[in-house]
Amino acid sequence: MNFKLKNDTFLRALLRQPTEYTPLWMMRQAGRYLPEYCATRKRAGSFLNLCKSPDMATEVTLQPLDRFPLDAAILFSDILTVPDAMGLGLYFSEGEGPKFERTVRDEAAVKALHVPDIGKDLKYVTDAVSQIRKALDGRVPLIGFSGSPWTLACYMVEGGSSDDYAKVKTMAYSEPKLMHQILSKTADTVTQYLNAQIEAGAQAVMIFDSWGGALSHAAYHEFSLPYMQRIVDGLIKEKDGVKIPNIVFTKGGGLWIESIANIGCDAVGLDWTMDIGIARQKVGHKVALQGNIDPLILFASPDAIRAEVEKVLASYGYGSGHVFNLGHGISQHTNPEHAAALVQAVHELSRKYH
Amino acid sequence: MNFKLKNDTFLRALLRQPTEYTPLWMMRQAGRYLPEYCATRKRAGSFLNLCKSPDMATEVTLQPLDRFPLDAAILFSDILTVPDAMGLGLYFSEGEGPKFERTVRDEAAVKALHVPDIGKDLKYVTDAVSQIRKALDGRVPLIGFSGSPWTLACYMVEGGSSDDYAKVKTMAYSEPKLMHQILSKTADTVTQYLNAQIEAGAQAVMIFDSWGGALSHAAYHEFSLPYMQRIVDGLIKEKDGVKIPNIVFTKGGGLWIESIANIGCDAVGLDWTMDIGIARQKVGHKVALQGNIDPLILFASPDAIRAEVEKVLASYGYGSGHVFNLGHGISQHTNPEHAAALVQAVHELSRKYH
Repeated sequence: MNFKLKNDTFLRALLRQPTEYTPLWMMRQAGRYLPEYCATRKRAGSFLNLCKSPDMATEVTLQPLDRFPLDAAILFSDILTVPDAMGLGLYFSEGEGPKFERTVRDEAAVKALHVPDIGKDLKYVTDAVSQIRKALDGRVPLIGFSGSPWTLACYMVEGGSSDDYAKVKTMAYSEPKLMHQILSKTADTVTQYLNAQIEAGAQAVMIFDSWGGALSHAAYHEFSLPYMQRIVDGLIKEKDGVKIPNIVFTKGGGLWIESIANIGCDAVGLDWTMDIGIARQKVGHKVALQGNIDPLILFASPDAIRAEVEKVLASYGYGSGHVFNLGHGISQHTNPEHAAALVQAVHELSRKYH
Repeated sequence: MNFKLKNDTFLRALLRQPTEYTPLWMMRQAGRYLPEYCATRKRAGSFLNLCKSPDMATEVTLQPLDRFPLDAAILFSDILTVPDAMGLGLYFSEGEGPKFERTVRDEAAVKALHVPDIGKDLKYVTDAVSQIRKALDGRVPLIGFSGSPWTLACYMVEGGSSDDYAKVKTMAYSEPKLMHQILSKTADTVTQYLNAQIEAGAQAVMIFDSWGGALSHAAYHEFSLPYMQRIVDGLIKEKDGVKIPNIVFTKGGGLWIESIANIGCDAVGLDWTMDIGIARQKVGHKVALQGNIDPLILFASPDAIRAEVEKVLASYGYGSGHVFNLGHGISQHTNPEHAAALVQAVHELSRKYH
């Protein structure tokens, strides 16, 4: 990997080094709000085909960058590639979201979990990473990612999405040892998976703990956070003399920001519910912060978007260490022109804070 | 109202006065997990009929008290009685939850909102309150309740439940004035509604802000909290020489607990995500706390339930000011025997903290 980065603002912000403006990218920036994404998705035939084709994954990863001057690209993939590679048989049923052919609800199922050979079972992901990195040609850094062990375990135990996480929480409360076995196996796989993405060219990695926020304070600190810490401990931190920063994002995790910032990560992702200035006061001496405008602001007018961007920037305040982002994935019903207004507002309005 | 209370532990805890043990009730304690509730609900023909019949509302309100030695009863009703009385036409479509015939999305619709005559339009609620209070015969105090203006506005603008609150948030961000008009009208109605419940016999009242937690920090402090403050300001605080405490509960509001405790309320409800000991450190000198065990713990064994009860009690620590509750409504799939185990555990294990 010898591509020189033309724009490394994102990486510098994650490392709390000075930048000229606040860099930004948008969670789920390659997504259904873009007609060009929908066209590729249609051509792919299915979401899973799209994830499993490095060519098409590369194509959609670059689409938002061709529209907007974003400061980072993120690998197009799905967090459920990991449980799929662990042998659970991922499929998508129309209108019902992701499903697994097999669930993990007893000791036999835990024992039967396949320990993936990343270079083989998830080669389509590392191939996509290499190919995207090459296609980016140094325009912006490429982010790799994985789901957190707890979040993946939610799907593995429930067998799909859930409103109340009844099955996985019942396991956590009733059979904590079994729960820890699942989380432990998953954490080891995720560590290898993220390191394989780094080896393939990812210049930063992010752990998405989408469902950690459904846990109680005590359960979060028992079942989610320690496994993210184990992953962070095991991550490659530098490659070819360049630092590889990592970001940990628990949706609904604002209450636990102090503990999250203590696991050794470089940056903490914030959803839109926490004031980013308060978050900075609590942990800004330790980590960078990524976030956190309400994605629904993009349904309002460009003027309203601009006003809200200013609020988030002003709340964070002066200096580096802030990567602007939405507090959650961009809605499929977003007008792309409003996303453009957001990007422009962040780039313009943030200069005065640097 | 001259019924002497045989058990006023709940009221004393809300006022942070000494008690012998930690009182408890369970959100949605009269609900589908009880076969006797399902029988009455079936006889009623529909959920709305059940809410609108003071006889049957009284019957189901008392059912959980006949099973478990709970320390409070809560009026059986629905938060959507208020928008219904404001002229929106509430109905329930099977499997889709509550719906409104009319939504409130423009100035004309706001102007057309009916200002209810509580004594007439919501007489079925105040009649139920009187009748329940009489039927309770002083066993335990009766809690009246309402949805918060923001939460009610979510339904009024969306026309039903919503995953992302796209319409109401778009209004809040794009047409804040219109949003404030809806919230203002609703807050005035809620104040009168709760006061009418107090006049009819409610001995404490609770405001359920179920969807405040979907807002950003700034939006919560603009669109939800000030209207709950306005209601608290306007509530009857004492009747016949007896204090009428009030409880404010924003689900997902842990991050904002300091501001919530500052609006003049007597108690703050907590969902299960916040450690109640941390909450007490932050605000326990100002308010009582109600909560906050994960309702999903009731899917685990009685031993696991007992261990988790001890955790919550120990986290709150010594002294009064704690009303034990679930962090959210009890699931319809709960085994009633597990609810009994919870009640027993709280009563037994809490004595050492008083």
